[in-house]
Order: sequence, then C-alpha cells, then structure tokens
Amino acid sequence: MTLAHPSHGIPDIRSAVEDQRRFAEGFFDELAAISTDPAGGITRDTYGAGENRGHEVMRRAADADGFAVTVDAAGNTYARWPQIAGAPDVIMGSHLDSVPRGGNFDGAAGPLAALVAMRALRAIGAVPRVTLCAMGIRAEESVWFQTSYIGSRAALGTLPRDTYDTARRIDTGRTLADHMAECGCDVDALRQGARALDPAAIAAYVEVHIEQAPSLLRGGKPLGICTAVPGNFRYPDLRIVGVHGHVGTPRRFRNDAAMAGARLAMEMDRVWSDSEAAGKPMGVTFGRFHTDAGFHGLTTVPGLFHLSVDVRAYDPDTLAGAEAAFLAIIARIEAEHGVRVDLGARKSAPVGLADADIRGALHAAAKAVDVDAVDLGSPASHDAAAFAAAGVPMAMLFVRNANGSHNPDEAMEIDDFMEGCAVLTRWLYDTYCR
Amino acid sequence: MTLAHPSHGIPDIRSAVEDQRRFAEGFFDELAAISTDPAGGITRDTYGAGENRGHEVMRRAADADGFAVTVDAAGNTYARWPQIAGAPDVIMGSHLDSVPRGGNFDGAAGPLAALVAMRALRAIGAVPRVTLCAMGIRAEESVWFQTSYIGSRAALGTLPRDTYDTARRIDTGRTLADHMAECGCDVDALRQGARALDPAAIAAYVEVHIEQAPSLLRGGKPLGICTAVPGNFRYPDLRIVGVHGHVGTPRRFRNDAAMAGARLAMEMDRVWSDSEAAGKPMGVTFGRFHTDAGFHGLTTVPGLFHLSVDVRAYDPDTLAGAEAAFLAIIARIEAEHGVRVDLGARKSAPVGLADADIRGALHAAAKAVDVDAVDLGSPASHDAAAFAAAGVPMAMLFVRNANGSHNPDEAMEIDDFMEGCAVLTRWLYDTYCR
Repeated sequence: MTLAHPSHGIPDIRSAVEDQRRFAEGFFDELAAISTDPAGGITRDTYGAGENRGHEVMRRAADADGFAVTVDAAGNTYARWPQIAGAPDVIMGSHLDSVPRGGNFDGAAGPLAALVAMRALRAIGAVPRVTLCAMGIRAEESVWFQTSYIGSRAALGTLPRDTYDTARRIDTGRTLADHMAECGCDVDALRQGARALDPAAIAAYVEVHIEQAPSLLRGGKPLGICTAVPGNFRYPDLRIVGVHGHVGTPRRFRNDAAMAGARLAMEMDRVWSDSEAAGKPMGVTFGRFHTDAGFHGLTTVPGLFHLSVDVRAYDPDTLAGAEAAFLAIIARIEAEHGVRVDLGARKSAPVGLADADIRGALHAAAKAVDVDAVDLGSPASHDAAAFAAAGVPMAMLFVRNANGSHNPDEAMEIDDFMEGCAVLTRWLYDTYCR
Repeated sequence: MTLAHPSHGIPDIRSAVEDQRRFAEGFFDELAAISTDPAGGITRDTYGAGENRGHEVMRRAADADGFAVTVDAAGNTYARWPQIAGAPDVIMGSHLDSVPRGGNFDGAAGPLAALVAMRALRAIGAVPRVTLCAMGIRAEESVWFQTSYIGSRAALGTLPRDTYDTARRIDTGRTLADHMAECGCDVDALRQGARALDPAAIAAYVEVHIEQAPSLLRGGKPLGICTAVPGNFRYPDLRIVGVHGHVGTPRRFRNDAAMAGARLAMEMDRVWSDSEAAGKPMGVTFGRFHTDAGFHGLTTVPGLFHLSVDVRAYDPDTLAGAEAAFLAIIARIEAEHGVRVDLGARKSAPVGLADADIRGALHAAAKAVDVDAVDLGSPASHDAAAFAAAGVPMAMLFVRNANGSHNPDEAMEIDDFMEGCAVLTRWLYDTYCR
C-alpha cells in the first residue's frame, strides 16, 4: 500500500507512522511489565535479569516482524531490514538498560523508534538502498559499572580490553566479565579483539532519546535535533581523608573531611557558573557526596568523606580547562584543610559532535512532516558519542519529556514520540529510499 | 598515717595521691576489658550493656573501699564518704558511657579521679566537713539519644519529662524509657518529678575530664582549669529536599540538594571564621553530611541531602547570633537553590560558666602541689554545664590528652591524670578538710 502525500506526490509518511502507534504503545507496555521495580520505577539492570528481559522483548517484536535478528558477542541485539549484501548499515539504536528505579522511556525509545520507522517504510512499500538496522545496546547506564558506553564500544571494538576484568558492578561487586558470561556473552572473543561492527561500513548512526532536561518542555517544542553529546571526565570513587575528631575540637586543630568536600563542591560550582557566563556550557555533578556511615555522628568531626564527580562539556578545551581547575582546587584544599585526597579511578569520554549533513537533513525532514524541531545540545551522555568517536557520522533526535530522567517520574507523551518517529522515517525515506 | 608536707606542715598530698597510681591503672584496665569493641576502640553504649558494665566496675571498686554506694532512679551511681547528715555534698563526677568505638578515658577519668581523691584523703587521715561524692553519670554522649546531659539532668530534675518517651536511640530506634527500664531505672518516678539531687544542697560540682582538643599538648601543659563549658544549638536530623535529576540536567533546571548542603556548610564556616576573628570562639560541626544512600549515584543529581549540625559558643549572645545567621542562610539557600529545608528537631544546651571562686581555689591548689595549670575554655560539652544551669557552683579540670577523643586513639598519660588528681585532692583538703 502506497499512500500519496497531498502536496509532494510522495507517500504520506505521517499516516504510515501514525499506524504504528498501537505497536509502539504495546512495546512500551510490555517493557514496563517485565521491569517494574517493587521499590518503585523501572529497573533494567545492566548485564542482569532486567536488561536481559528488555532484549527479549525487542527480539520477540523484531522476529514477529520478520526482521533479521542477531546478537553479538557483547549481547547487543540487531534487527535488520532489508539485508543488502555490500551495502552499508544505517544504525538506529539506543540502550535497553536503566538506572535503578528509573523510567521506562530512557533508552528504550531508540530501538523502538527504529522498529517503528522500518515497519512504516515497509508498509508504504519503500525500498531502501542500505540495510536499516535497529540496535538494542547493552550497558549504557554507567551507574552500574562506573564505565561509559560498554555495549556500543564493545561492538565497535573500542572498549579498553582490561575493562572486562577491572570494572565491577556497584551492587554485586562482581566483574563485568562475570556478569556478561552469565548473560551468554562471549567475553573471550571480545578480549581477543572481536568486534561486531566495522565503523567504515556504517553510513550513519542515529539515536532517538527522550530529553533528560526540561528545555523542550519549557520551550514548547516537541523535538530537538542534537548538536553535540558532551564529553566528560569522572572520578567515581574519590575519597577525602582527614582526621576524625571530637565536636569540640577548635577550628585550627581540625582536619574536617566533610568541610573539605563542601569546599570542593562550591569551588567547582564557581568554575561551572564562570564557564556558563563565558558562553561555554558544561555540567558538574557530585552524585554521591557523603560522610562515612561507619563513623559519622552528631558529635564527631568527619575524618572521611566520599564522593563521585562527573564533569561534562561540549568542547574538548572547556573540558580540559575544567579538569585542570579541579585538580588545582584539590591541591589547594589538601594544603589548607590538612586532608589527603585519593582520586581513585579516573574515567572519561570524548565530546561527540553531531554530523552537520545529517543534522541538516533531519531539519529538512522535520519541516517536511510539519514537526517543530530545534537545535539542542545533549544534556546527557549517549552511545552516539561512542559511534562519533569511532568515526561514524552521528545524529540524535530528542523527544520532549517532563520531570527529567533517571527517576520514576519521567513523562514522555506518546504523541511527541510519534513526531520523532515521523521525522526519523521521513529522513530515511528521503535519504536512502529514493 | 599522716605525712607531713615538707614546707607547709600539712600532709604530703602528692605522695598520698601517687600511692593510688596502681589503683587508678587497674580501674582503667578493668573498664577497657569490659568495653573493648570487636570493631575497634571502646564502646560503652548509653543505657545499654556497655554503660551498665562501666557502672558495675565503679560500684565494685567503691564497695571494696567501704564508700556508701547508691544508684538513683536514672541509674546514676554515687559513692559517698564520709556521710555527714545535714552537710552539703561536694560532687565529683563525669560519665561512664562512650561514643561508639571511642576511647577509654573520655568520661571515666572523672569518677575515678573522685575515688582516687577520696582514698588519698582517707589515707592521710583527713576529716572532711562535707560529704564527698564520686558520681558515675549516665547518658552524657548525645550521639546515642541525640540529647544532651540525660543522666545529670534526670538526677537534678531538669530534664524535660517528655524526653523519656520522645528520644530514641539512634541504633535501636527504641525509646529512652524503654532502654532505661531495661537497665533497672524507675522511669515512672522520674516522669512524676522525682529527683536524686537538690541543687541547693550541693556545695560544688567538680569534673575531671580529658581535654578533647590538643591545646594543652601543643602548649606543653599537663592541666587546664575550665573557664566555661560551651552552650550549643543542634539540628540532629536536618533534611534538604530538592529534586533528583539526570546528570545532564542544565544548571538552571537543577534543584541539587547536595550543592545546597555544601553551600550551607561553607556559609556557616564563614560565620565561624568571622566570629573567631572577632575574638568570639565558637564551633561548627556537620557530623553527618550525606546524600541519600537509597538514591545516590554517579549519574544522578541528588534530590535529598541529610545532615546533623552542632553549633557551640562560650557566651549566649554569640550562640544566638550564630543561630540567627544559620536560619537566614537557610532561607537564602531555599530561595536560590529551589530546595526545601526540613529543620527537624532542635536541641540546645545553655552556656555553663565555671564558678570564679572555685577556679581561683583550684589555681591555688595547683600551685601548692607544683602542677603547671592554665585557664582553658572547654572544647566540648559536659555534665558540668547541666549542674551550672541548675545553679550549682561548677568547675572542671582538663587533663592533657593526644589525638582528641571520640576515637580509639585518644591518649592520656597516667602521669598527667595523677597530676589532676593531686590538684583535686589538694583543693578538697584546703577547702573542706581544715
């Protein structure tokens, strides 16, 4: 069935996408059913039972559609249509894991949008010149293994190979290799350099994701077209060592680890606000920030303080400047507060710039299907940055979403999701189908 | 046996006290043996097994000496000698509980010094005109029930009567009344206003305690004579409520509870340093200072922050000014960070000024026994402040101590403790025995 578009003489892509609404709602409902956490929200734990069930939902849906389903050595799920030998892939993906007690849409919207677009294109009889590929990615939520982009970098062959044996899941304490083996992955193959994707054979990577900040909501826009994914540096387990003391210890005799932590946070907050004022957006988050539960109390000057820090920015210079400032602040605090700072492990991810050509084409597609889309820097990190770092032309679409993400209250309207699917489908049609 | 002092024709009190060294060491050793915590340090838990065993050690020692031992409705232990009908008491006491994994001397040095002084005076044949009373006090360490001076205020009849049913032990969650009943206390009598001590019938309260800061150590002095015990205000369970958010949330959309907590700490630190610079010593301690373990993580902007705060000062105006500043800072932080602050319970204790006459007499006694003693503001809170608040003339002697207190590494030299006992004994002899 080919529906004619009223004004352009091309199929009515909005209607074909709209026909997929019930499928999309059913997919989200099924995902929620298999991952509702008794403690509230959604938990699809990385390389654990929750994420596994998410991938099963995707595989069942893609199988039922007759798309060619494969799983790679890292457990990523691929659904391809049509399979054209020698033609590059256009990969549309995102992750199927979640933070503990998170929301249902963060990640899952991406593979689902891909399936919706592929179903809609097939329904209108479109014939792609490339292989379209929906990709369900593993292990994007770095809260679990304190490491970014594990699944996508494993697929691309860019994950440092010691990660499998050094990263440990924060709740179980067991290694990544251990968890992956339990999920049927072939860790030995990965350790020996196997990779599922050749970056040179990927024409484009496009990721649909809910927005994780309220910019679109406050701006009254349903869709954002990504300009860049921030890079970051992280110290997931920094420790400040002072001296536990009595509450009555005079100021000059204290080595208060909590006050040192508070000062670090306030000085990094100043670095942040100065950078924003200079037109260089960045972000500073002390996600864990706490005295030691084994020692702390009303009448004890804290001698131990633990924190995690994530600093992100949209260009490498801003990021490097922020890290230099961070280390200088720490040196000052050590000297002035009489404490020692153990930085612990350092993690980082490079800035990912969206491909200018794809961005332009997505804006044109949005205009063609009457969706009001705006440029938007990604508030969060995404697998898209790992593809960009591997040299793959990358783009992202952000769907308006209330209440942020990484919490049970994220709230994307299915109407907005369908707008995103319409833009994605129109872009695929215009770029690869005629 | 009466030993003549070489120069003054009075008994040689230093020698008589020195004869008690082995008794003192044995008492400390016995206390350590019954309260060594398998996790490290000393734990004599308030109204629990550890504190009970401490009081048993004191009762056994005082019984063996033939002093008259009694226990009041709140479980405080008294050892009196001689018992003179109609004469006032001179009470020498301190507490027998400890913080979790604390040290052996904090508190226990007080009742032991009293027993040493009474034994020494009896040995030289001194005949007191008043009743000397060693008091082992309950429940001074407010970390357990988040409430100051429970044992001493119960004895004096100044503890608010709802405390028994509202204060809960932080580790067990059970009420003070429940814990007291388990220790054989008569809570009903206390609720009905019974008191063991009539402030008007107490001639003096003197407390020997280790110093909980390194002022004496750094100054090279074995003994301090207290000028005042600080008053305090406390919010043991303050909570900052923001909004949990994704790590990528832009600055203007955040309601970061941890950053709000850091700012509160830094601004109170400024209040503190300004006050010290103006010659008004005070103290600010955020003992618990932490994100919520149920939610926090590397990639989550903290929406909940918990803290305890203790602010102390040596005069009521400084204390009141600090609290006004604290509340004003909180109001600003609520407005500027978009968070709500639940103050939770407020606790306070008044400033306790040492009695000028007793201070003078203690200085004279120190000079008479060749002990180099200096004036010293108490770094910590003490039961002495509860006696002062009840109108009892109060004084304290601080014994030099390394490594602070409230930790396993406190280190008082027994030589310094014996110097303190010598001053106490000489003061009792000069003031009440001739």
